[in-house]
Amino acid sequence: MRTGADLAAIRERRPLVHQITNYVVMNETANATLALGALPVMAHAVEEVEELAAVAGALVLNIGTLSKHWIEAMLLAAQADDRASVPVVLDPVGAGATKLRTETAKRLLAKTEIAVVRGNAAEVATLAGRQAEIRGVESIGANDSGSELAKTAASTLGCVVAVTGPVDHVSDGDRVVAVTNGHELLSTVTGTGCMSSAITGCFLSVAPDRPLEAAAEALVAFGVAGEDAAQRAAGPGSFHANLYDALYNLDPGTLDERAKAEEG
Amino acid sequence: MRTGADLAAIRERRPLVHQITNYVVMNETANATLALGALPVMAHAVEEVEELAAVAGALVLNIGTLSKHWIEAMLLAAQADDRASVPVVLDPVGAGATKLRTETAKRLLAKTEIAVVRGNAAEVATLAGRQAEIRGVESIGANDSGSELAKTAASTLGCVVAVTGPVDHVSDGDRVVAVTNGHELLSTVTGTGCMSSAITGCFLSVAPDRPLEAAAEALVAFGVAGEDAAQRAAGPGSFHANLYDALYNLDPGTLDERAKAEEG
Amino acid sequence: MRTGADLAAIRERRPLVHQITNYVVMNETANATLALGALPVMAHAVEEVEELAAVAGALVLNIGTLSKHWIEAMLLAAQADDRASVPVVLDPVGAGATKLRTETAKRLLAKTEIAVVRGNAAEVATLAGRQAEIRGVESIGANDSGSELAKTAASTLGCVVAVTGPVDHVSDGDRVVAVTNGHELLSTVTGTGCMSSAITGCFLSVAPDRPLEAAAEALVAFGVAGEDAAQRAAGPGSFHANLYDALYNLDPGTLDERAKAEEG
Repeated sequence: MRTGADLAAIRERRPLVHQITNYVVMNETANATLALGALPVMAHAVEEVEELAAVAGALVLNIGTLSKHWIEAMLLAAQADDRASVPVVLDPVGAGATKLRTETAKRLLAKTEIAVVRGNAAEVATLAGRQAEIRGVESIGANDSGSELAKTAASTLGCVVAVTGPVDHVSDGDRVVAVTNGHELLSTVTGTGCMSSAITGCFLSVAPDRPLEAAAEALVAFGVAGEDAAQRAAGPGSFHANLYDALYNLDPGTLDERAKAEEG
Repeated sequence: MRTGADLAAIRERRPLVHQITNYVVMNETANATLALGALPVMAHAVEEVEELAAVAGALVLNIGTLSKHWIEAMLLAAQADDRASVPVVLDPVGAGATKLRTETAKRLLAKTEIAVVRGNAAEVATLAGRQAEIRGVESIGANDSGSELAKTAASTLGCVVAVTGPVDHVSDGDRVVAVTNGHELLSTVTGTGCMSSAITGCFLSVAPDRPLEAAAEALVAFGVAGEDAAQRAAGPGSFHANLYDALYNLDPGTLDERAKAEEG
Repeated sequence: MRTGADLAAIRERRPLVHQITNYVVMNETANATLALGALPVMAHAVEEVEELAAVAGALVLNIGTLSKHWIEAMLLAAQADDRASVPVVLDPVGAGATKLRTETAKRLLAKTEIAVVRGNAAEVATLAGRQAEIRGVESIGANDSGSELAKTAASTLGCVVAVTGPVDHVSDGDRVVAVTNGHELLSTVTGTGCMSSAITGCFLSVAPDRPLEAAAEALVAFGVAGEDAAQRAAGPGSFHANLYDALYNLDPGTLDERAKAEEG
């Protein structure tokens, strides 16, 4: 893992991260992307998503607020990106909570080449056919440990899987990396999971051939920013504002020594 | 009224508050719900809204940015929640401003069981067939006093009505509670009315059989948070961030003594 | 130019600024409008946009996240506003980045009366048939200088054109005003361009017969607010919150002396 060097590469190259995401967090994921140093482009019209594959460094699909046209746009965009070898991140928000979400996530996994799935334990367990308890879009628990779940899901889904929670686990079906950076205030702000998926897209755009590392590095960077943001936070509102400051001020020079990532 | 005890119940039970709301405030009402201690779920697809009735503690409908599919989803969701005895809050944003909004609000009231309507004076007056002046989605004035308006509207509409403004009035057609908590900076941030409707949903989910109290308690809690948020605010931006901090830090132990609510 | 007096007029008259804008920035442009002192109304349903022409002081169209129904609503709204002599601002977000956006912007310009186009260099160059480099929705560069580009585009498009960037240029095809107020942190927050278009709508609503001045005044006011917001900012998050505080606290009495606007 070389989180610092990859962050420096993001800031230098300013990759375009195309996001088809939910209404609730669009502003937030765009701002997180921009604060980190990449360029967000938010576009969902079926008439234009394919065109962006030619210029995008990564595509992030997030199914947090679905409807028919959006699903169609996600499929078109991901297929165009497959042809252009642009890596795709899938955030299966609420898979397990409603049939529409579960089926849409499965359909995207079946019909397109996904590089990384980033979700909570319940969402990932649903997609991997494991037991889980979900409440709305919040994960309450899963029978497997995070490590087992990430590994099993990666094998089953045939891509890198990042299961986030108090401890994050990232696996490619073979190796597993545990990331313990982060802060509990992250769970008090809507869309921090979605932001971590957007940031996964940023790292993936500069390391498309190292998806396991890219996904783990993204969670390290986002977790460290969360730790910094919590320093002067009085609650979720100030923490949320601080989080963009912290992403913007992340220091590539100290990121690797601050990383709490362990393989095993 | 037992605002403190009901807030403690929200934080303990973490009810799921399903929201079909407008694009402008989705992030804000989700974050207000989360900061208070409940779990927001934002979903509007006709394919999934009925499924959520089985798990939701309350449903909040907000007509702030309408289009055909969303109206259909609101009707489906509310009817499913009626069958499941899940209480529904209606926020008739802009009723009186355009025919589409007035008619949609009336249709929802006619075709579904609404527990609480939370709106400004002009919106409520429009629905109750009274005189009012509206400008865009802002209430300029109504001929009735807030207290009369809330009472008349509650009788006419057959549900609890909360009319918010410098002083809030909540009525079930018989009793009227006036709430004077709050701060003028609340009117400088978009969506604070919508947030108060979301919070009404939170309180209603733990007190479904006491809709008058739940609606008044929500306005007390939100008003007290507004007072706290204003303490170190330099304008609408810092006030807005502080508001989530304040909702998160609301102390159930002091809430009842800070309540400025009077029946009469 | 009389930025201070026009700001005072906005705060006194509280014009309604109707906005059909993109999902990413709706909350932000509504809050910027409100913080400045005008009243935002966000409505996009084809059934209601014409009705708002009767009460709106200005209409702002922003094509940042398009789909078919929204384009139709923009056309209907703009045509109704033309009939009612309500000035229209067009923000051609991403023109040049995808065909859909370029064509939609051109169609709106051809079929409706636009008072002011506010965009970055690449967007404006695209619409004026000049060379430009765009990356997603970010302008990378244009062959013409900002001043030449604004003037040429204004002549070609037959309306006032504001090209924003490190230095802003506003032209009616004859005169050119350069505005150097602002701060580099503005480019680290999504939607600050969109906010400046919304604020252009606010100023235009009190000076519909002086579109060149209104557009330049809006950029002065927004730029000064950006300067104030940067004072205590630690990054994009705190800057973003401060920006609403700064818009709210803009002093009409000192605005003209703080203006860095030059004709030439």
